[in-house]
Amino acid sequence: MDILDQNQALANLLDAHLTDLAQAEGLDKSQILDGIRAGRMVLLANPGHANVRPTLIGQPARVKVNANIGTSKLLNDPALEAAKLAEAERAGADAVMDLSTAGDLDAIRLSMLAATPLPLGTVPVYAAAQKSIEAGEDPAGMDADAIIDEIAKQARQGVDFMTVHCGVTRKAVDLAGSRVCGVVSRGGALLGRWMRENGRENPLYTRYDDILDISREFNLTLSLGDGLRPGAGVDAGDAAQWEEVAVLGELQARALRAGVQVMIEGPGHVPLHLVAGQIQMAKRLTNHAPLYVLGPLVTDCAAGYDHIAGAIGGAIGVMHGVDFLCYLTPAEHLTLPCLDDVRQGVLASRVAAQSGEAALGRPHAVARDLAMSKARKALDWDGMAQNALDPDMVRSRRKEHAHEKECAMCGKYCAMKML
Amino acid sequence: MDILDQNQALANLLDAHLTDLAQAEGLDKSQILDGIRAGRMVLLANPGHANVRPTLIGQPARVKVNANIGTSKLLNDPALEAAKLAEAERAGADAVMDLSTAGDLDAIRLSMLAATPLPLGTVPVYAAAQKSIEAGEDPAGMDADAIIDEIAKQARQGVDFMTVHCGVTRKAVDLAGSRVCGVVSRGGALLGRWMRENGRENPLYTRYDDILDISREFNLTLSLGDGLRPGAGVDAGDAAQWEEVAVLGELQARALRAGVQVMIEGPGHVPLHLVAGQIQMAKRLTNHAPLYVLGPLVTDCAAGYDHIAGAIGGAIGVMHGVDFLCYLTPAEHLTLPCLDDVRQGVLASRVAAQSGEAALGRPHAVARDLAMSKARKALDWDGMAQNALDPDMVRSRRKEHAHEKECAMCGKYCAMKML
Repeated sequence: MDILDQNQALANLLDAHLTDLAQAEGLDKSQILDGIRAGRMVLLANPGHANVRPTLIGQPARVKVNANIGTSKLLNDPALEAAKLAEAERAGADAVMDLSTAGDLDAIRLSMLAATPLPLGTVPVYAAAQKSIEAGEDPAGMDADAIIDEIAKQARQGVDFMTVHCGVTRKAVDLAGSRVCGVVSRGGALLGRWMRENGRENPLYTRYDDILDISREFNLTLSLGDGLRPGAGVDAGDAAQWEEVAVLGELQARALRAGVQVMIEGPGHVPLHLVAGQIQMAKRLTNHAPLYVLGPLVTDCAAGYDHIAGAIGGAIGVMHGVDFLCYLTPAEHLTLPCLDDVRQGVLASRVAAQSGEAALGRPHAVARDLAMSKARKALDWDGMAQNALDPDMVRSRRKEHAHEKECAMCGKYCAMKML
Repeated sequence: MDILDQNQALANLLDAHLTDLAQAEGLDKSQILDGIRAGRMVLLANPGHANVRPTLIGQPARVKVNANIGTSKLLNDPALEAAKLAEAERAGADAVMDLSTAGDLDAIRLSMLAATPLPLGTVPVYAAAQKSIEAGEDPAGMDADAIIDEIAKQARQGVDFMTVHCGVTRKAVDLAGSRVCGVVSRGGALLGRWMRENGRENPLYTRYDDILDISREFNLTLSLGDGLRPGAGVDAGDAAQWEEVAVLGELQARALRAGVQVMIEGPGHVPLHLVAGQIQMAKRLTNHAPLYVLGPLVTDCAAGYDHIAGAIGGAIGVMHGVDFLCYLTPAEHLTLPCLDDVRQGVLASRVAAQSGEAALGRPHAVARDLAMSKARKALDWDGMAQNALDPDMVRSRRKEHAHEKECAMCGKYCAMKML
């Protein structure tokens, strides 16, 4: 019995889309089927999400980019979030997560599901905690059943993947006690508080089988959250982090046996010289399941430019096995992103993905770099726009001098024409 | 006889500034003197540049960032360039190069020298070629003496460092014939054309001793240009590139013996997996002289986002020995940078420098990351602004919600306060 024997929704999706997926990814069908069976690839798509574009995560499938959007108490404007969703699509995001924590969360989520073909992800513990947090009550009072029920409801609504911090055990949280930045994951911190106040183990861990049953029915992909990811470079690679990763590896194996697709979430803040080792170790400990990372941020003090710090870590991460990049925007650590932040964040992650994949020799990435360089040598501006990661940007910055063959930087000093 | 015995201007500068330099860099005086004597460090400062801030280049001195500005035929606005100079300083650039190719180049250069304490660099062959290029004549007609005279004039004017493409030999240019992007350096292409049309060797190579005599008198630091740097990832590491680098290594040794300070310029477009090797090989071949790189750009198709592609390569470069980062702006490959591009470019390079230096364990970089993380844990926004690479950016993005303790992203879901 492998995953396809147990997960009928996934089997049906592959029957319908395998040929197109193989063509789009430049892979053999067998590579995809083998990858999914081994848990090295996942296919994001809940059949309940109308018009969803089934999206493959897991190298050698193309590295994908996710954009986080969603309301917060201080910036609660669902229309703006809808605009960000459209902007993320235009900028080339492959998936979106709705991290809303304010307003009518069901309505926001359903409207996003209706609006986008991109796989939509959520963090259901946010919704489960909303009532108590908005009432000024301790979210530790929330009921374990309420979390499981929220997961089931969102799966029925069509959510394609969910971050569930199942590996945030009491032991792991205790190990984080001596950190500079402690627990920086919102979900991880919520569950840590719940465990401390209730004196009980993480319900997402103890009731993992319930979560697996829900997931299998809807081909909901679990994104096993890294609640103990380092939030400061100095915290990277400590026992708390690896304790959780090791638990996630066990949970990934259990899910695969139960017919459920799993991704693993990764750091976080990691100094540049440690990124390769972190990625290799995380992949190994989690059975080479698709790795979905936030950053890694290679410096802590780039606030306002965290999309760049994240692109540095992300590019190296991709080269060492990262499969899925969660964008960081210039707003990270400061405020909610605006529309332009969303665009900047998606593009920075796409630069990282392209750089990492070209380094790995992935044919599509190498061909794109080569085509761009040939267009550049020929001063073929249409060709450059076409091969650029952001064609609109090339056209818009060229506009002022579009009648000139050379660009405004060099003019008649153009090296391309000098020899 | 070492460099300090021969270069009186440099010896005087060290007499006046060594104590302050050692303090600012967190180094012993002997580390600086030994570094300069060995050619592993240079002190940028022409005593003829009034109020210049003598600036040390060469790890373990702090990695520095240069901003390129200057007019072009299509965007010839000296007032805008003056504003860019001020913006580069505000953004934290350590040096500026005036790459103007249009207008009254002497006037522009002199006004920049008067306006800034930052070491100012130039590419004198641009000025030497301006007359013929503007007249629509072949720049191959320019006189070799005119180039040497231009260098001497600019040295007298107070220019602190100059890019001279002395290693662009006929052999090296011939080797570049099979490249996708050929020669992409403006200076390199100009000299290549000159050699081809005149059937003679590069005058910057044949008359290198004349250049050394001028340089020694003014403590002009030579930045040995990489005219054959790869302009496409696929061209990186070819025989043309290494032929030039090997010549630069010989020229660096000759300069040091002659009492002249030298930096080496580096690539260019280099795929991510080749950056470390490129940097290590360039440093070795050039006797560990300070390495000054443009990028490296780890993908060719990031037009509009080349500051990010360059920050990825730059961070890895710093970790492997790069000493001086030349910024790339979002305008690279498209047009001349605007004011905001200048800011973005400087900050992207500073993110790269900070990331690379933290990875190397440089005390100032490690301490900054740690201080930022402690401020973040304490929700101490003043502390965060103070330790951020761009304090103004932190303050401006916080402004809207500055009365709230938490940021607008998480609000009451703040992980820092949850546990």
